[in-house]
Amino acid sequence: MRQALRVHNFFVSADGFGAGEGQSLERPFGHADPRALGAWAMATASWPNRTEPGGSQGLDDYLIRDFHRNIGAEIMGRNKFGPQRGPWQDEQWKGWWGEEPPFHTPVFVLTHHPRPSFALADTTFHFVSGDPADVLSRAREAATGQDVRLGGGAQTIRAFLDADLVDTLHVAVAPIELGSGSQLWHSPSELDDRFHRDEVPRPSGVVHHLLWRR
Amino acid sequence: MRQALRVHNFFVSADGFGAGEGQSLERPFGHADPRALGAWAMATASWPNRTEPGGSQGLDDYLIRDFHRNIGAEIMGRNKFGPQRGPWQDEQWKGWWGEEPPFHTPVFVLTHHPRPSFALADTTFHFVSGDPADVLSRAREAATGQDVRLGGGAQTIRAFLDADLVDTLHVAVAPIELGSGSQLWHSPSELDDRFHRDEVPRPSGVVHHLLWRR
Repeated sequence: MRQALRVHNFFVSADGFGAGEGQSLERPFGHADPRALGAWAMATASWPNRTEPGGSQGLDDYLIRDFHRNIGAEIMGRNKFGPQRGPWQDEQWKGWWGEEPPFHTPVFVLTHHPRPSFALADTTFHFVSGDPADVLSRAREAATGQDVRLGGGAQTIRAFLDADLVDTLHVAVAPIELGSGSQLWHSPSELDDRFHRDEVPRPSGVVHHLLWRR
Repeated sequence: MRQALRVHNFFVSADGFGAGEGQSLERPFGHADPRALGAWAMATASWPNRTEPGGSQGLDDYLIRDFHRNIGAEIMGRNKFGPQRGPWQDEQWKGWWGEEPPFHTPVFVLTHHPRPSFALADTTFHFVSGDPADVLSRAREAATGQDVRLGGGAQTIRAFLDADLVDTLHVAVAPIELGSGSQLWHSPSELDDRFHRDEVPRPSGVVHHLLWRR
């Protein structure tokens, strides 16, 4: 079976923004509050950063658990990896996730600025340039038969959508507006010509959009 | 982590019946039409008996895929295994599923009538008596660290609910009435004192109920 390129648990605001403006070391999501974007996810039993026992095991939890299912590699934009721009000044930066990143696979970070690969626990970060098809080809090879997750941010997902390389998407729309920032869509119906879409509103306030190719 | 006992993709009618009356070799679900009970499932891309390409990959499909996730054994009632009653007259009967049963794990069939275990492809059927806790203990051992699926029918699920051994349930309620047969519940709210419940209606007509222990 072909290795799919899948978006999972990508959080956006009701107006389609995955992050706000003004990303910095202190504010990875710029003016957006990640706790507001992801409140539904943080309430689930399977949320990886959960520190207390408990949490919901309803539908929101099912979707959170699918983050790792049959995934052998991730592709992410540079701004998901860190707030730096331009050439790497300091290779001490190893991402936002501390000593145990939640990926557990090879991760391909899109950047025009070369940097050596490095491993952190069971995640290996590679820094790659090239068009989306080339990068996907490298990620598929690294995924050894499993699927590839397209991790975002919004610009990165847009680039792979524009190249028509995305097979399925799970986008979770939070009931907040951001007004500006990194935008995935004005409306999910923009993709209806190319994707089927299942829209599932939940009591937690989130609306799950599940999309797959027509 | 403790090995959970999980019900998955158990189909019932709007009035709570998992099967009709009058089970026979020709009618495994008695007077119930399994195509009406499971129409939503058969429309999904992941339905195991799908013979044509295509199928939905929306929420219904997510839930169908979870059938095998982290499952190391199944427990089922005798009537799920076959239409026979009383002592085994004919050990030629190997279940409804042909040469490749869809379980791919050890399966424990509840019966007071002894019969030797047998393997069919990568499924092994064991015939066991004893109270629910004893049977669950044997199934957990066979599941070697993974969870155990409680496969039904309704009476079997009720017996394990009465013994307070069930951790999570996914019950899919179809928009048909059966009037009589093997009944899981009059209403899902009967379990609300012991379980949280997430209720998710879909355009396919099914209502998914996801339950987990309080």
